[in-house]
Amino acid sequence: MIRMDWNALDPGEREQALRRPVQLAQATTAAAVSAILDEVQRDGDDAVRACTRRFDGIALESMQVTDEEFAVAGSELTPALRAAIDEAAQRIARFHEAGMTSAYALETAPGVRCERILRAIQRVGLYVPAGSAPLPSTALMLGVPARLAGCAEVVLCTPPRRDGSADPAVLYAARRCGITRVYKAGGAQAIAAMAFGTDSIPRCDKLFGPGNAYVTEAKRQVALADDGAAIDMPAGPSEVLVIADSGANPAFVAADLLSQAEHGPDSQVILLSDDDVLIDAVSAEIDTQLDALPRADVARQALTGSRAIRVGSIAQALDISNRYAPEHLILALRDARSWLPRVQAAGSVFLGDWAPEALGDYCSGTNHVLPTSGAARFIGGLTVASFQVAITVQEVEPRGIAAIGPCAVELASAEGLHAHRQAVVLRLQAVAA
Amino acid sequence: MIRMDWNALDPGEREQALRRPVQLAQATTAAAVSAILDEVQRDGDDAVRACTRRFDGIALESMQVTDEEFAVAGSELTPALRAAIDEAAQRIARFHEAGMTSAYALETAPGVRCERILRAIQRVGLYVPAGSAPLPSTALMLGVPARLAGCAEVVLCTPPRRDGSADPAVLYAARRCGITRVYKAGGAQAIAAMAFGTDSIPRCDKLFGPGNAYVTEAKRQVALADDGAAIDMPAGPSEVLVIADSGANPAFVAADLLSQAEHGPDSQVILLSDDDVLIDAVSAEIDTQLDALPRADVARQALTGSRAIRVGSIAQALDISNRYAPEHLILALRDARSWLPRVQAAGSVFLGDWAPEALGDYCSGTNHVLPTSGAARFIGGLTVASFQVAITVQEVEPRGIAAIGPCAVELASAEGLHAHRQAVVLRLQAVAA
Ligand SMILES: [Zn+2]
Ligand SMILES: [Zn+2]
Repeated sequence: MIRMDWNALDPGEREQALRRPVQLAQATTAAAVSAILDEVQRDGDDAVRACTRRFDGIALESMQVTDEEFAVAGSELTPALRAAIDEAAQRIARFHEAGMTSAYALETAPGVRCERILRAIQRVGLYVPAGSAPLPSTALMLGVPARLAGCAEVVLCTPPRRDGSADPAVLYAARRCGITRVYKAGGAQAIAAMAFGTDSIPRCDKLFGPGNAYVTEAKRQVALADDGAAIDMPAGPSEVLVIADSGANPAFVAADLLSQAEHGPDSQVILLSDDDVLIDAVSAEIDTQLDALPRADVARQALTGSRAIRVGSIAQALDISNRYAPEHLILALRDARSWLPRVQAAGSVFLGDWAPEALGDYCSGTNHVLPTSGAARFIGGLTVASFQVAITVQEVEPRGIAAIGPCAVELASAEGLHAHRQAVVLRLQAVAA
Repeated sequence: MIRMDWNALDPGEREQALRRPVQLAQATTAAAVSAILDEVQRDGDDAVRACTRRFDGIALESMQVTDEEFAVAGSELTPALRAAIDEAAQRIARFHEAGMTSAYALETAPGVRCERILRAIQRVGLYVPAGSAPLPSTALMLGVPARLAGCAEVVLCTPPRRDGSADPAVLYAARRCGITRVYKAGGAQAIAAMAFGTDSIPRCDKLFGPGNAYVTEAKRQVALADDGAAIDMPAGPSEVLVIADSGANPAFVAADLLSQAEHGPDSQVILLSDDDVLIDAVSAEIDTQLDALPRADVARQALTGSRAIRVGSIAQALDISNRYAPEHLILALRDARSWLPRVQAAGSVFLGDWAPEALGDYCSGTNHVLPTSGAARFIGGLTVASFQVAITVQEVEPRGIAAIGPCAVELASAEGLHAHRQAVVLRLQAVAA
């Protein structure tokens, strides 16, 4: 980790210290993705199959996962893994259900009833990566809220393995969420198929889920396309910012930083502490724990760009964190909860020594699809509402328009919109007659 | 209006009948806007002032509206207009406040407390057009929810008039929402200034509000820029779809269609009815009412592309409407409420004969910033939540990690994320010790 002392930095250096790496190779990725999108729009399933041969190295006749494949998948998992998926799904459902948006109605004036009604987005497309590792947890984080929202059609795409099968844990998790339409397709071709539709893969209104640079770029492009699909949120490399005081456990902090680092070579890892001794101890712990990690090379790359910043106070650390707006914020502080009111921008917050980020990734109940790259300043993580639309309604009785019509007439006149004015005046006259 | 019979159309013609016009001149607009964005990023206030001279025909020394200007503006309005703005603001506030998202917390397992906390987006930028007409109502629709959300900094840009002043009704409405930082700047230059910041105009996290093609394109571009700003929603021409039965009042329906048509030459206007007599009567009424409209030329242009479609049944009309996903949906039906459960996608719904769209534009209480171009399939109109972010939190006791840690360990193992596993295992060992 790069060591810094915040109070020794000038404003430019501070900005630099919190800067995220610019996404590289955008131009080449964008062109490659654009070509795939065109191909899928033109040739449909044939194009998806061709891409699957090219990128996943497997020729698939049918992409849709069959009932038999689902059944086999279930039997391939250990009982312990099945139980863990079930248990996680239950807690995720409990937390998400409690936060669901409600319909409501009220009279804003006598005879004017205004309300909000909720509808599930009809067709949603979920993407579950399976690159360096399959992610059944992501199937739950997308599938559970989609189910709670009541989406009529839920489609899930996940890349096939070399033998042409889908990861059994992903299939089990999908089934656990009531998802039956799973397609073995990955990368930009899967995003294109869900956005534009093919003969076998239905066209979706909104796409969800993380992915590699190609998936992310494909989501960006279909969100911009006329007649494309909406997307959940912009995506960047995963991030953690840990604020630790002198009482923090260096082994725990190191493990949390390494958890983030192992996600990918571009993972963002930041430690803020007011205690040099703690920073030293964490650094030493990182070196020790790193040796035991199978993904040590990935973690080492991420750690090269990571920063351990000495701050003047915990309050200063919170200010820095708010400016950075991390995806994950761990408050390894003695009185973590008392600092929560100071948190202004973060995806998900982990309070105290016993809340490793891994719990949020898997099974505390919160969603792990969270805003990255500073997007926490303006968007939160996935919720059931991400899978719904709210529609407003107004129902007006004659006495209702008599009550509020004159106000509309006055404003329409001020805005020079005479047909608007007339639409109200005609009704006011009818009511008065 | 173009008359059609839905059941006489083949699938291709049906698609054509519901197709929105492609946004024209995107390429030239995009290039012009991109040049303005670059200019403002490079030269700041000087660039904004130069654009204001160029496009609004006025050389402004200071763009910020002063206290004196606010005071003068208030005195320029009639008491009736001030009262109408106050009254509308109150109803909008009442409806929006009742729909605010709540914080919540629950134990998802013994010793695992998960919660959602809410934070206002710190710096928001509101755009209030004043092209063909100033829109004080838009200042309310943006300013009221921003205030309810508790945004710390609210900036509002609105184009100056030829004499260098801002529209007094817009200023009064802004002040009514507690907004004190109003800048006389319009078009792409105002969006650029709020997205990137200048010496005088603060940089904002998220931008809100409608505008012309340049404003819309500028919002699109800053939303894509690294270090740009988030935006409220994609924007297209305003739309209404009216479903009317034989009992509907032709004069009311015509007035509602004309209200939409007068918004702009690209406004989308669709009438669906199962009754030819009603369609004939509405057409005749449109001709009569059109003559009396000051904006008749604008409305006529919009009506050229508008469609009156004969349907086989009201149920079929609802299906067509859901497919189109209109911004405004008027159900001029005898039993309008009974059809509401069939509405799947729309921005705002107006039930019955006494709810002209104009009420929603101004003062029923619902928001008039709504999804256009079919975006109602996946996003709703503005709410207080549009000005907030939700952050999830987990607080875990030692018994909490003992309860759910093993589940995380199992899933981390399945995903091959050993540092994640280790972060939990270390803590489980410490708890057991
Ligand atoms: Zn993680
Ligand atoms: Zn209108």
